Amino acid sequence: MEPSCGSRGPGPAAAAVAAVLPAGGSGERLGGATPKQFCTVQGRPLVSYTVGAMERISWISHIIVVVSPENIEKMNSIVEKYGHKRVTIVRGGVTRHRSIFNGLKVFAENNFSNQLLQKPEVVIIHDAVRPFVEEDILSKVVMAAKDHGAAGAIRPLVSTVIASAADGFLDHSLERARYRASEMPQAFLFDIIYEAYQQCTDYDLDYGTECLHLALKYCKTNAKLVEGTADLWKVTYKRDLYAAESIIKGNLSQQVCIITNVKEDVAQVNFLLHESLKSRIKVEAVSVTLSKNDGQLQDIFSGQCYNFVCISDKKYAVEETQKLVDMLEKSNTPLLYPVVLISVHLDVSENTSCSIGMEELTRIKKFAREVKKKNILLYGILFQYKDCLLLQETVNSAAALILALIMDRNPELIGQLLVA
Amino acid sequence: MEPSCGSRGPGPAAAAVAAVLPAGGSGERLGGATPKQFCTVQGRPLVSYTVGAMERISWISHIIVVVSPENIEKMNSIVEKYGHKRVTIVRGGVTRHRSIFNGLKVFAENNFSNQLLQKPEVVIIHDAVRPFVEEDILSKVVMAAKDHGAAGAIRPLVSTVIASAADGFLDHSLERARYRASEMPQAFLFDIIYEAYQQCTDYDLDYGTECLHLALKYCKTNAKLVEGTADLWKVTYKRDLYAAESIIKGNLSQQVCIITNVKEDVAQVNFLLHESLKSRIKVEAVSVTLSKNDGQLQDIFSGQCYNFVCISDKKYAVEETQKLVDMLEKSNTPLLYPVVLISVHLDVSENTSCSIGMEELTRIKKFAREVKKKNILLYGILFQYKDCLLLQETVNSAAALILALIMDRNPELIGQLLVA
Repeated sequence: MEPSCGSRGPGPAAAAVAAVLPAGGSGERLGGATPKQFCTVQGRPLVSYTVGAMERISWISHIIVVVSPENIEKMNSIVEKYGHKRVTIVRGGVTRHRSIFNGLKVFAENNFSNQLLQKPEVVIIHDAVRPFVEEDILSKVVMAAKDHGAAGAIRPLVSTVIASAADGFLDHSLERARYRASEMPQAFLFDIIYEAYQQCTDYDLDYGTECLHLALKYCKTNAKLVEGTADLWKVTYKRDLYAAESIIKGNLSQQVCIITNVKEDVAQVNFLLHESLKSRIKVEAVSVTLSKNDGQLQDIFSGQCYNFVCISDKKYAVEETQKLVDMLEKSNTPLLYPVVLISVHLDVSENTSCSIGMEELTRIKKFAREVKKKNILLYGILFQYKDCLLLQETVNSAAALILALIMDRNPELIGQLLVA
Repeated sequence: MEPSCGSRGPGPAAAAVAAVLPAGGSGERLGGATPKQFCTVQGRPLVSYTVGAMERISWISHIIVVVSPENIEKMNSIVEKYGHKRVTIVRGGVTRHRSIFNGLKVFAENNFSNQLLQKPEVVIIHDAVRPFVEEDILSKVVMAAKDHGAAGAIRPLVSTVIASAADGFLDHSLERARYRASEMPQAFLFDIIYEAYQQCTDYDLDYGTECLHLALKYCKTNAKLVEGTADLWKVTYKRDLYAAESIIKGNLSQQVCIITNVKEDVAQVNFLLHESLKSRIKVEAVSVTLSKNDGQLQDIFSGQCYNFVCISDKKYAVEETQKLVDMLEKSNTPLLYPVVLISVHLDVSENTSCSIGMEELTRIKKFAREVKKKNILLYGILFQYKDCLLLQETVNSAAALILALIMDRNPELIGQLLVA
């Protein structure tokens, strides 16, 4: 993914900034065999989303992903499959702190890695299982770390925190307003956090979890605390994976592109469908003949749109759909996320007793299965256009189906022809 | 819902136990206009799920739901719509503690409520936004409260907790292992917690949040801490609603009932479908002619099954489906949760070029819209049965569609006829 414009804007650009993502956890709280950072959401491992969030930011020069030895191969293939750049994979230690320390050594110890990377001024430490981190908070913690040596994102506590006595009874409860949850990202002047890791005890390395604590204890650096947003949360339990899935589906459902050929009948349906959809989703409408290699379409393919509706008055125009599939594939759009492609078949025949042949349906299903291999989810909608009085109702029904298909992205329903 | 068997088993049965559910929060952290306890999941407000979880337990004699004055009407209609029993709605105060205190007064102050309820020995306090509470933890905190005066569920901390200094810098971080998150449910000897509320200061009532703290401070009662499970979590953010939706959908997708008439062809498909489904979901198979009022079906309807597959070799057998709909409606099954009803149409014609008429499809859609008003989601699957070699493949495809429809419960796709 291209670095977004404007990411040269904030102060961090002036500093050399690298990121270390500990991704060595075993995910026991998730209750599954797969560590949570490798659990997939919309088919893609969580860690790839987090790496992607870092990668979008041009002023982060290196992304160090620390994984346990048995997952190095897996992580290598993730980096390759999703085309991640600026990533170095490092072998983790047996605890979180030891893994982070290993990640930092890549910048400092010649003999630790094949390639000694240029030491950054500031290093970000961020969990691989917090995929929704935004540039804003990263920029804030980096700036604060530059100024104060250390900084970390915090959030209000959701529950009261209590201290239990050894006998399993309440000792005391903390006043909720005085305390905060320490979240990620955190950032440090590299020399400070590296010094802290070099000085800290084996007990710290084995049982500690908090980098801010090490900076305070060994380098007398009181971290600046930065209020973060709710989406910094850590995917910890199975329910968090459900939430992540819903959030990512929601993000993918922000925009739809409607592609039509230019005939009169189609234009009217296109207009009404646009009107019906636009209150719920951003709609981009493109009128093209797919035979030409249209520049407007290329622009959209290289943008952030992962949903396409193709309106056609040819019956089950597999050829047109095939052209779209080819263009999408070439654009690399389906690489990171499954793309939804809905083919709306406009039936303008006057014949009320028209029918759909089973062979046709079977053919569409087969085609959709092929297309799915390219990470494109193809659905069909049959739109009967014979009664002007019912046109608006049919349009609304089609719009509802389109939204449902986009928001659900259900791979089991591909190749089905739904009736608007 | 009937109280489950065996809920007379544990110790709490001997004590009079009531529950107070504070449901007066404004839900500002959710970022929406609707307080989270009234947000709907599968069409039903969250608070109704939590009330339902309490109601299932026969040894809880009264459930006091405390809501803010403007939501009393809404809460009344929820109790009526979902047929909740043993519920008393109480007007909340301006803070959490004041609301809980109001809830307790129903058992102690004659002039507070029209009906003075019998004072329980033990009172459970539980958040309306923690819908997944199980009898096991309720029983444990009640027993512990009987023995020790107070008890509360705890969970390990997900994040390190830190204290910030007034200047926004880190003061110190807490050693994560020594602290716990205080969750709900909590339970108290009624006299202890009521005494604590009577004695506590206005400052406590306005700014405090922790009942265990009041019992400790004003009644010198150190609560027994009981380790809870992960599903005690509190619906706080929008992502928690997504998670709750997925969990409830998952719970509703545990079991499917396959209903068939008894003909040979159907029996074979039924058998294969059963085999294909049963690795992923519990399958109950019933062979009936729907014309008789079958006792076996009645048993299933009164159970915990919310998914039905009806296999029929009559083309689009709306009449049979109608009978099932009527029986489901009579059984009250769709009252609490939407019921998925999938009509599998077995096409045994030899004709490979058979087709489906648009009129038929429109008729099915219309019918499904009617049925949806009864909270039944009706879908169709067309199963072509002409080539023995492809039979297993078609069965697998049908099973995948059935599972997808059950797990998604998508109301926009009702009335569609999918091809297996």
